[in-house]
Order: sequence, then structure tokens, then C-alpha cells
Amino acid sequence: ADLRSLADYERRAAAHMAPEVWRHVQEGAGREITLRENRAAFDRIGLLPRAMADLSGTTRIELLGRSHAAPIMLGPIAYQRLANPDGELATARAATALDTGMVASTLSSVRLEDIAACARLLAAEFARPAPPLWFQLYLQQERGHSLELVRRAEEAGYEAIVLTIDAGLKPSGIVLPDGVEAVNLAGMPRPRQTSTPGGAILLGTPLAAAAPGWEDLAWLRAATRLPILVKGMVLADDARRAVEEGVDGLIVSNHGGRVLDGLPSPVELIQSVAEATGGAVPLLLDGGVRQGTDVVKALALGARAVLVGRPQMHALAVAGMAGAAHMIHLLRTELEAAMAQLGCPKVEMLTPDRLVSLAG
Amino acid sequence: ADLRSLADYERRAAAHMAPEVWRHVQEGAGREITLRENRAAFDRIGLLPRAMADLSGTTRIELLGRSHAAPIMLGPIAYQRLANPDGELATARAATALDTGMVASTLSSVRLEDIAACARLLAAEFARPAPPLWFQLYLQQERGHSLELVRRAEEAGYEAIVLTIDAGLKPSGIVLPDGVEAVNLAGMPRPRQTSTPGGAILLGTPLAAAAPGWEDLAWLRAATRLPILVKGMVLADDARRAVEEGVDGLIVSNHGGRVLDGLPSPVELIQSVAEATGGAVPLLLDGGVRQGTDVVKALALGARAVLVGRPQMHALAVAGMAGAAHMIHLLRTELEAAMAQLGCPKVEMLTPDRLVSLAG
Amino acid sequence: ADLRSLADYERRAAAHMAPEVWRHVQEGAGREITLRENRAAFDRIGLLPRAMADLSGTTRIELLGRSHAAPIMLGPIAYQRLANPDGELATARAATALDTGMVASTLSSVRLEDIAACARLLAAEFARPAPPLWFQLYLQQERGHSLELVRRAEEAGYEAIVLTIDAGLKPSGIVLPDGVEAVNLAGMPRPRQTSTPGGAILLGTPLAAAAPGWEDLAWLRAATRLPILVKGMVLADDARRAVEEGVDGLIVSNHGGRVLDGLPSPVELIQSVAEATGGAVPLLLDGGVRQGTDVVKALALGARAVLVGRPQMHALAVAGMAGAAHMIHLLRTELEAAMAQLGCPKVEMLTPDRLVSLAG
Amino acid sequence: ADLRSLADYERRAAAHMAPEVWRHVQEGAGREITLRENRAAFDRIGLLPRAMADLSGTTRIELLGRSHAAPIMLGPIAYQRLANPDGELATARAATALDTGMVASTLSSVRLEDIAACARLLAAEFARPAPPLWFQLYLQQERGHSLELVRRAEEAGYEAIVLTIDAGLKPSGIVLPDGVEAVNLAGMPRPRQTSTPGGAILLGTPLAAAAPGWEDLAWLRAATRLPILVKGMVLADDARRAVEEGVDGLIVSNHGGRVLDGLPSPVELIQSVAEATGGAVPLLLDGGVRQGTDVVKALALGARAVLVGRPQMHALAVAGMAGAAHMIHLLRTELEAAMAQLGCPKVEMLTPDRLVSLAG
Ligand SMILES: Cc1cc2nc3c(=O)[nH]c(=O)nc-3n(C[C@H](O)[C@H](O)[C@H](O)COP(=O)(O)O)c2cc1C
Ligand SMILES: Cc1cc2nc3c(=O)[nH]c(=O)nc-3n(C[C@H](O)[C@H](O)[C@H](O)COP(=O)(O)O)c2cc1C
Ligand SMILES: Cc1cc2nc3c(=O)[nH]c(=O)nc-3n(C[C@H](O)[C@H](O)[C@H](O)COP(=O)(O)O)c2cc1C
Ligand SMILES: Cc1cc2nc3c(=O)[nH]c(=O)nc-3n(C[C@H](O)[C@H](O)[C@H](O)COP(=O)(O)O)c2cc1C
Repeated sequence: ADLRSLADYERRAAAHMAPEVWRHVQEGAGREITLRENRAAFDRIGLLPRAMADLSGTTRIELLGRSHAAPIMLGPIAYQRLANPDGELATARAATALDTGMVASTLSSVRLEDIAACARLLAAEFARPAPPLWFQLYLQQERGHSLELVRRAEEAGYEAIVLTIDAGLKPSGIVLPDGVEAVNLAGMPRPRQTSTPGGAILLGTPLAAAAPGWEDLAWLRAATRLPILVKGMVLADDARRAVEEGVDGLIVSNHGGRVLDGLPSPVELIQSVAEATGGAVPLLLDGGVRQGTDVVKALALGARAVLVGRPQMHALAVAGMAGAAHMIHLLRTELEAAMAQLGCPKVEMLTPDRLVSLAG
Repeated sequence: ADLRSLADYERRAAAHMAPEVWRHVQEGAGREITLRENRAAFDRIGLLPRAMADLSGTTRIELLGRSHAAPIMLGPIAYQRLANPDGELATARAATALDTGMVASTLSSVRLEDIAACARLLAAEFARPAPPLWFQLYLQQERGHSLELVRRAEEAGYEAIVLTIDAGLKPSGIVLPDGVEAVNLAGMPRPRQTSTPGGAILLGTPLAAAAPGWEDLAWLRAATRLPILVKGMVLADDARRAVEEGVDGLIVSNHGGRVLDGLPSPVELIQSVAEATGGAVPLLLDGGVRQGTDVVKALALGARAVLVGRPQMHALAVAGMAGAAHMIHLLRTELEAAMAQLGCPKVEMLTPDRLVSLAG
Repeated sequence: ADLRSLADYERRAAAHMAPEVWRHVQEGAGREITLRENRAAFDRIGLLPRAMADLSGTTRIELLGRSHAAPIMLGPIAYQRLANPDGELATARAATALDTGMVASTLSSVRLEDIAACARLLAAEFARPAPPLWFQLYLQQERGHSLELVRRAEEAGYEAIVLTIDAGLKPSGIVLPDGVEAVNLAGMPRPRQTSTPGGAILLGTPLAAAAPGWEDLAWLRAATRLPILVKGMVLADDARRAVEEGVDGLIVSNHGGRVLDGLPSPVELIQSVAEATGGAVPLLLDGGVRQGTDVVKALALGARAVLVGRPQMHALAVAGMAGAAHMIHLLRTELEAAMAQLGCPKVEMLTPDRLVSLAG
Repeated sequence: ADLRSLADYERRAAAHMAPEVWRHVQEGAGREITLRENRAAFDRIGLLPRAMADLSGTTRIELLGRSHAAPIMLGPIAYQRLANPDGELATARAATALDTGMVASTLSSVRLEDIAACARLLAAEFARPAPPLWFQLYLQQERGHSLELVRRAEEAGYEAIVLTIDAGLKPSGIVLPDGVEAVNLAGMPRPRQTSTPGGAILLGTPLAAAAPGWEDLAWLRAATRLPILVKGMVLADDARRAVEEGVDGLIVSNHGGRVLDGLPSPVELIQSVAEATGGAVPLLLDGGVRQGTDVVKALALGARAVLVGRPQMHALAVAGMAGAAHMIHLLRTELEAAMAQLGCPKVEMLTPDRLVSLAG
């Protein structure tokens, strides 16, 4: 009935998911300090509105050569069939209907080819181009398998590769129910942590060796012509180096607080990344984006666009494709309202001097 | 039974309103950060009392050429019949009985002429002048209609126009029950937000175009001889410009936290507005004023007077006209007690050096 | 059964008082920000212990020419028969048994002469001098009556007058039950607040005129040879002036958060008072003292001694004289433990460099 | 079933202990401000990860001439049979199985000789050296008895003496159930606090005189060739002096918040101790260590290793020896994961520049 914000979807979603799925989606690492910071960092930022501004403008942005209707994308979320039987297909349809970019995960529960085809088909019905589709890559233990994924993404028409670097050693969470699996990885070996009493636990094991390193980035850079974005880089020095290594974009992210508890919010870090990279590549940000004012704040701090994570699962669980589409629409409406109320009807007007720390 | 503070009225009021009305009155935008800040900002300020001061003094102030018994006014609140069948008439009687200024809303549920007449009638009974009555203007889509409202307010004896600039794009909240409507606007078209899938949502639509701009202020300035106050201006630069454009006062307000979540409290902003305008026009403040010490703090920070919003609805709901009058009396009594305990029995003694940040 | 701290007495006391008495004892003014600050300010202060110090020492202090077993006194609390039928007599016996100074209130529910006699009698039984007894004075509307109280206190052997200056305009709280009254004031008129609609509320009324002023202090100074302490002074300037006017001590207090909500804690203010008065007179402090470490902190910040307020009522309600005595014993034991654990076995070792702000 | 973190053990343990034992284990002194600070101080520290680092490394460290598999030890906890019938024997077996150092308490509920023998026996079964065993010393009222304990520890093969200096005056908490006692102290007199009304409470009593002083440290230094660590020293000056007096290590600790409420967290203090001692002796830290990231933070601030306290009791209560072993394994696994995710696979890479204050 009353679904007027992403928070409403979240509240409602609990009842639409099995408890262990709900927990899996919501949880953060450790004591969930980073998870809470992701929200708190937004909430600490105040907004300073210009009065009586002219409100002609648009949310449209350019990103890697494509036009996006708004600076909002759907971030990579694994196993979307946990939330809804249609899984990533529902998401792809919603993204297409709302002309919103989508990042498909390596761990999607629908084949990456099918996701892309689904978007293209619906776009054709609407007689519009498909929305920007990117493929999120988790490196596989064998480079051959990673390459295979990249080639398949290229074939399927994905327009960029998002290399996620921060979750290599994240313990796998949920036990997947029947029928939900990492279909893209059929036939590829999955790493697992083993330890003998007294022996090495993690450091110096094959698992650690398989975590993505700079040489992997160089390899990937050489392996594909698609733009590459690195997701999970938060420090200025690393970002600068990544740019030197030829990446086309960075997603400042702490993986939604799911990996290393204690990481600051991307909101706290993006300005130093922006200074270090000096506009050489676009910066995106995710983590805790739940309302229009969050998007405004992220952009004012240097993000070209934001990605939303969990809200996709909430909306899918509550109302499938329609829910996901409505969720995007709500967020975009809020963004426009926030820009208008702030007296900044154009994204380039969103500058740090519109922000202030809230004291309390 | 035990109604000894505005907080008591608020607590009691919940039981006297339909749940959706209660929610409508109480709610803030978004995550209600600004709503909470409005209170928290007051609570963070400590008071430093002079000991054993002489306590002869008064709360009386001058404002736009009129004398007010205390630096407290009733701010514009729409649809007061939601709280009590007599609505704005009850408020007007209470204001008259307690000799307190009142700002009638464009969206009053009693005709602006009837509100003014009611105050004048009761004042005559008391053989006193009516209290200062101001008219709060929401610009209408057609200037003709806005002008009509101004002319009616002039005719009815309102002594100032309060142009509210911060709520142009506020989504309408509640569904009004039968018999409660914007009677002043009978026959005028109401704006509404529409959006086609893929089309513009807000920015660049007629709705955005209708939001008040500087040219509207200039028009209004030319259209009436009444003093004009702008309500909802919070930045120093805008305030300076408004003064240059000829406004006679400013109400530093974030609309009770109901519009753009993330705005700082007026309490945090008024000093910079005061510096920017250098006393050229009186500053008023609203948002979260609930007790005598809040008035003291606002005045010490540069406000000439404060307005109370929601407490009107609470008091009306609990006890109609008598409630509203009692509420005003409580607040004025608290103000006098606070001034006495602070050793500052005159409003001009309320200076920033009486204030200190509370650490905790 | 398990009464091992003042907090235990407080928890237990609720069940031993009528609800309105409990509320009366516990409550603070307004939103109880000052009440909470009184505790929070102590809690924010950290302690830095010297390791392996020599622990020979004592808590004994000199104050206005008398030796006190510990820097802890029982502050003035009105109407102690609200908590226990024996009221102030029980307190006086406990004070005597534990050799602890006591301040009797003008509003005691046992005659000031009877309180003093009771202490003296028990002291004689113990073959010890009675503990220091001070009389707390609320100025009466007629100076004659105030003088009468002072003379009676002198006669009865009180050793100092505590002039409370911060509660002149505090609205009277509780309705006293039968048999509990201000027996010292029999036959004297009590002030009350009256206001006519539209007329003066407080400022400029006789009630305000009766609040204590500097001329009253001068009068009192001339009227008695007893040492005078002023209770309720918190600002450096006022304290300096009071010293010039000949007071013998100051009690830095906000009346337990019961008068002006928004006052900082005495703990936050005492250092500036200490600097302003430069040791000319002893400073005492009350408000929120509940455990040994609080005493340590107050002394390190410049207090010569502390007073406890509400804990008297809690202990009286739970176990009468025995409770009050046990309460004092617990606090003194905790004080000694805290001094020992801090490596500061003498009061003069308690200096600001033993303190640190706690970050969290 | 679901025991995946130390927090899980803690949560579960409540149901496995008698309520008074649970309270005894969990409680802190006073209002438990220090207890909470011990956690809060860790939680306030953020982590700044290097991206895509090489992850070959190890957690192994050298300490007092011995190699430890990880910078984690089991701190001294009295009366472990309160948690499990096997008490310290279960702990010793877990320590041996996981090759983790253990500190046996003077107040162990199993004889110190039996603890050491048990570890040695199991180590022999594993054909490995026993883990480092240290003996924690509480000074006895007679030096002869203290010396006896030291000699017995030397004989039994303990490799260091940990002199705890901060709990001399801690009131004994729990009433020990039948069969749990301080078996090491059989035949030695136990100090107890006594006070006569009006007499000395603590300061200047024999109890205070028995608290450890610098002369006791000198005596101990002369009495044994074993390395001596002092536990409970938190100030830079004292630490410097202790080093001059010949101690071999310091354990920065506030006794788990159980002694003097108001002490800052060791996490807040260790950097100044490290500066003062300039690496002359290894620093250890305990208090609130519950997860891998806590260890990382402690090491980055200057600790060579950490000790865990209460988690031993939680794990023993839930699952005895297996629980304790699992608890150690969980913590070490988390430590490795944290180091990997931080891009610091070697302990010497854990430097202060990996840390940042979290704003919220
Ligand atoms: C259930 C779930 C699954 C996720 N799966 C992936 C994934 O497969 N690949 C990836 O790069 N990030 C993944 N993430 C991280 C998200 O892309 C994103 O960084 C994060 O959710 C953003 O925070 P938010 O959920 O607060 O919006 C996942 C997050 C969640 C909650
Ligand atoms: C129910 C409600 C209706 C309001 N209607 C109006 C209005 O019609 N015009 C206007 O300028 N402000 C309106 N406001 C804002 C108030 O004038 C005022 O800015 C705000 O309530 C002050 O905060 P307070 O409620 O915390 O005192 C309204 C506020 C509330 C709560
Ligand atoms: C129930 C009650 C009655 C009091 N009566 C008096 C009084 O008669 N005279 C006075 O100077 N202060 C009075 N006080 C204030 C106390 O002396 C003291 O300043 C305050 O209680 C200290 O704070 P604490 O209660 O947190 O220790 C009273 C306080 C309470 C709680
Ligand atoms: C139940 C209990 C018993 C303890 N017994 C001792 C002891 O006998 N000797 C000692 O030096 N410390 C003792 N301690 C303190 C611990 O060694 C350690 O400093 C503290 O528990 C560390 O904090 P943590 O529990 O948060 O890890 C004890 C602590 C607890 C909780």
C-alpha cells in the first residue's frame, strides 16, 4: 500500500524474504560499524539551499561516453533470485523501463547473456536504446576463467568491466537455496578456505595468493578494450596508481560494509580520492544511498554518479520488476526535488559549498 | 488535568487527533534529521546566568511599528480545522485574548477575512486593539490570483505579507477530510506533480517554473505597500539580496523540518544571517520553539521574535481556543522565568555572551 | 538486601516513596538537560592513575575553621519528612554518627532548633563534638523574617549561613501531604505568583522584586557574624564580586538541575570560578555527586568539598537514619578507594593533571 | 550451533553460567564507563586499506625470546572453574592445541603446577614444545608468601612473571561456590577490608600498606631471574620508571574496566606509553579485544601483542576446552582476514597511518 520511499521498501521487505536471506542482504561485517557509518556519514552532512533559484535543469549526465537519465545506477548484487524468482531479469527490465544503468554481478543467478538479452528485448519494445549495462568481474582462480567471463561480457554487449577488488577474502555468507546458483561460473572451481591446526590460516595460502593484485589489473587492462572501473578502492594513493595503470573509472565503495568492519564511509573518503585523481577519470560511489539528498551529497563531494545496492533486493522482494522500477523512480523524483529545494537544478551546481557539517 | 508545558500539550494531543492528522502535523521530511536538529540545536546551547540581578523589566518588543507583548508570534499553519472544528477562529481568539501576533496561512481552513474579523470583534469586546495580524502568501500559478490574495489581505486589515519561499515543491501530504479545505483558494487552480515514464519529473516542468523566484519578490514588492517578510531564507547571501530588494523582515525557518531534510536548524544559521544583514531588517526565527529558554536563546542569537508552529495544533486539538490561549500563556510565563533566572529581565540584555555550548 | 552503592539506593527508593514524591525528588526543570548534564559532565572526565604510589593519607579537610572527616557534606534538602517520618532528625543522626557536615534547609520539615539539638544529643552520647551544622537561608519577603531565621540559626548553634540565590522564582513543585510543612516559617507569608490576563506575569512583579539581590547580600553580611556561603553562583564575575562583598565561601551549584534548564554542570564551571577567586574562599560543588570518583573529580577541579542532595532522600526513604548513615559510609569508602587506585592518597594530590577528557 | 565470532560465544555464555557468575565475569567497576570505553575506543578507530597488496605474510611474532604463532595471548583470569569444571586445565589444553601463550593467575582454581604440567603433557602428545606459559603474581601480605609463589612458578617452568599492580584494593566480588578456591594460596592469609565507625576506612590501613609499591618491584626484580612484566601501568612517566627499574615488558591494561571506573581505554593510552619507553621493552595491551580488527588496531598503535580476558570464560562456559580452542582459532582467523583486507600481511606493516578516527 504505502510505499513512498526506499525506506518503506526496506521496512516492507523483511516480510517478503526468508529470514536467512534477509539477514544475508542486510548484514555487515563484524560489529557493523562500517555499515552504520555508511548511513551516518550522509546524515551528518547538512545542506545549504539557495533561495528562489531558477529551476530549469536536468539530472542527465555523461558517463564513459553514454548519456544517463540520472546519476544513479544499479550496483552489482549477487544472486538476485534470492529476492524474487525472476532475479536479475526483473532488475534488467526495471533498469530498461527507467532508462537506468545496471551492473551485472559475476555471481548473478541468471546468465549474464540472458540479462543483457532481456534488457535489449524490452528496450526494442520501447523503441529505445538499452540502458548502459556493465559487467562486474570477480577474478577467478585461473586467469583463463576470468578471461572467459570478460569475453562473454564483451560478446553480450556489456559496455564496461567493473573489477571488484575488495571482496577476495570475504567469507561466503549464505547457503544458497536450490535453484539459486552462480550460473556464470558453471564448471569453474570455487576457492575455499582450509586450515590445518597449527598451519597457515589465510596469509600465505593459495586463497590469499588468488586475491586481486596490481599485476591482475595490468593483465585485465591488456585483455580487453572495454572501459575498466575498479570497485573497492578508497585511498588516494591507490587511486592515483590505478589511474596510471589505465583504469577508466573508480567506484569508491566499502562493499556496503560487508567486508572489513572499520572502513570509513565512501562519503568521508571520496574528496581525497577526487583530489588525488584530479578529474582524470569519473568517480562513482556506493554505500548507504537511500534517498535523493544522499545523491546530492555524493555529487557535491565529487561523485559523477552513485550506485544503489540493497534497495534493489528490497524492491525485488516486495514487488519484483515493478518494485525495482518504482524504487528507481522514487529515488530520481527525490533527487529532482532535492536539487530544486537546494536551488541547484543542474548537477554541476552541486558543489561542496552547498554542504555543511551538522553539529549534532 | 496536568498541562503545565507545551510538551504536555504535545503528549496529550496525540489522543485528540486522527492518526493521519497527528502524523501530518508531527512529521518531518525524509529521515527527519532536520526535524530533530531543530530541537537538538536548542538543547545544545547552555545558559550562563548573572547572579542576583535586578529583575525589573518586560518582554515587550517593537516590530514593524507595532508593539508586541512578548517576542512570540503564532506562525502560519495550514488547515487548523484539522485540529479543532473552530480552526483558525479559535486561534485568532486566543491570539487576541493574549495580545499575541498571528500569521494566517494562505491555506487556512477559514477565510482570511473571517479570521481577521473574528480577532477584531473580540478585541472590541476587550476594548483593546486587535493583535498584529499578518498574512502568509503562497504564490499561486497565476499572478492574478496571488494579487487577489494580497488585495484581500490588505482589505481585511492584515498588517504584513509573509512570503513563504521554501515549500513550493513540497509534496502535498495529507488527504483533507470533508469540510476542511483551502477556502481562500476557491476557484484557483492547484498545481500538481505529473510525470510520464522517461519524461521530466520535476526539473524543467511547469511545477518547477511556478516556484517563487527573485522576479516574483520584485513583483510583490511593487504590488503592495504592506511590509513584506520572506519566510524560509537561511543563507547570508540570499538574505542580503532580499534586503536590497526591499523586504521588511526575514523569517529564518526550515519550515519545521518539513521540506528539505538536511537543512541545519535556524538556530545554527541565524547568526550569519544577522551578520549579513547587520540589523537592516528584523529577523524572526521558527522551528522547534517549545519553551521559554528556547525564546531566550533565539533572541540572544539575533532574533527579534520567534514563531511557534505545531504547538498551536497541539493546543487546539486538546482544548480549542482555551488551549491555544493557555499555550501562549505558558510559553510567555516560561520566557519571563527564564529571563529572570538568567538575570536578564530585558530583551536587549539577551546577548550571545549569555550562551555557551553544552559539551555533552 | 543488596545496597552497595548510591545508585542501588536510588533504584530501590522508587518503591519506598509515593509516586508524586518520587517525581518531586527526581525531577529537573524543563527537558532535564541540566539534570542529565550534571551526571554526564562527571562521566566525561577520565582519571589518570599513578602506579604503585605510597598509600598513606587521609580524606580529612579543614573548612571554615572546622575539621571534616571527608570532603563530603549533606546539602540542604527541603521537607525530608516526605521521605521518612523522622525526616531531618534521621539525617542529623546519620550525619552525627558518620561525623559529616549537614546543611539544614529553611524549608526543613523539622524545626531548625530540633535538628541541631538532635545532633548535639547524639554527639554527646558518642562523647564527640557534633558535626558541622550549617543553615541554608531562603530570603523571606520581609527582612524581619529573614533576620529572625538567621538569629534562630545562630542561637541553635549553626556555624554558617548558606544563602541560596538561584531558586527565588522556582515554581513550587509538590503539594505537601498532611503533616509535612515548612515549620520554620510558621507565621510568615509565602510568596505566590499571580497574573492577570494581559498584565505582568513575573518581570516587574513583587515576586521578582523579592528575589535576592546584591543589596540583600550586603544586608546579610552586616546582620550576622557567622560565615556566609552563597549557593547557586556559577559565573566567575559574580563570584569575584561576592568575594569582594565579604562572603566566606561559594557553593557552585545549579540546584540539582531544578531551576533553569540549560545551565552547564558545576563541574564545567568550577575551574573558571576557581581562577576568578584565586583561592580567596573555599569552593564547594553540588549536583550529580553519586560515587567516590565524582568527589575525586570535583576536588581535582578546585572544589574543597562536595555536597550530596537527592541521595539523602533515597537513603532516608529506603532505611531512614541507618540508610543515610550507610549512604555516607559507602560514598566515603568509594572516595578512599578511588584516591588509592588513583595513587593520590591525600586531597591535595588531587590536581587537574590527574584528569583527562574521555573521547567517547 | 552458530558460533562464528567471540560475540557469539559471549551471547551464548549467559545461559551456561549461574547468574551471579555471569555478572561477576561481565561486570565493570562503578557505572561501567571504562568497561564501555574499552570497546568504544576500538570502535572509534577506522581502518585504511591498501588496495591489491601482495598477501604473503604471517602473524608470527617474537616475544621475550619465544616465537608466538600470533600476537594473541590468554590473559590471567582468576577462578576459571567458575566457567567450567575443568577450569584452567581446559584453558591450558586449548592454549597448547592452538600454540598460544597463556598467563596463569595467582587466583587460579587449579594449582599452578598442574596447569603447567597439563600443557606440557599435551604438547608432548603433539610432539611440539609447550606454548609460552607466564605466571601472574598478586603480591601477598607477607613477602615470604609472594616469594614462595614465584619459586613455585619458576619450578613449574613458567617463563615470565606478570606483576599485576592495579587490583590491590579491588573489593572481592563474588562468593565462590564450593570447590572453587584460590588453591595456590592455601595456607596464606587473605587481606580483608575492615573499618570501625569513625575510624580509617582504607587509606592508612594495613590493606593500603599492602598494595604494591615501587620497592616491591625492586624486591621482585632482585628475587627472580625470570622476565618480569608489569600489568596495569598506563601512564608514560610510570612506564619509563618501570623500565629503568628493570622490567622486561608492560601490559597496558585497566583490568578490563573492573577496578577504577573512569580510566581511559588502553587503546587511548598506549601510544604515549610507547613514546615514553621508545621500544625499550615490548608493550602488550588488554581490554575489550574481541575481534581481528581490534588486534590490528592495537598493534598499529604500538602493542607487540594483545591478551584476551573474558572471552576465555565465555568459551569455557559454552564448550570447555573445545570452546576455548575454537575461540582462539576464530580470533586468529579474523586477524589474518583483517590483515589481508587491510593489505598489511605482516605485523610490522601495521602502522598508525593505517588508522583514522571515525567521525561518528
Ligand atoms: C546481498 C549483496 C550482494 C552483493 N554482491 C556483490 C557482488 O556480487 N559484486 C560486487 O561487486 N558487490 C556486491 N555487493 C556490494 C554492492 O555492489 C554495493 O557495493 C553495496 O551493496 C552498496 O551498499 P548499499 O547496499 O548500502 O547500497 C553486494 C552487496 C549485497 C548487499
Ligand atoms: C501542519 C503544518 C502546517 C504548516 N503550514 C504552513 C503554511 O501553510 N505556510 C507556511 O508558511 N508554513 C507552514 N508551516 C510551517 C510553519 O509555519 C513553521 O515554519 C514550522 O511549523 C515551525 O516549526 P515548529 O512546528 O517546530 O514550531 C506548517 C507547519 C506545520 C507543522
Ligand atoms: C527534593 C529537593 C529539595 C531541595 N531543597 C533545597 C532547599 O531547600 N534549599 C536549597 O538550597 N537547595 C535545595 N535543593 C537543592 C540541593 O541542595 C542541591 O543543590 C541539589 O540537590 C544537588 O544535586 P543532587 O541532588 O544531584 O546531588 C533541593 C533539591 C532537591 C532534589
Ligand atoms: C573474571 C575476571 C577475572 C580476572 N582475574 C584476574 C586475575 O586474577 N589477575 C589479573 O591480573 N587480572 C585478572 N583479570 C583481568 C584480566 O586479566 C584482563 O585484564 C581483562 O579481563 C581484560 O579485559 P577483557 O576481559 O575485556 O578482555 C580478570 C578479569 C576478569 C573478567
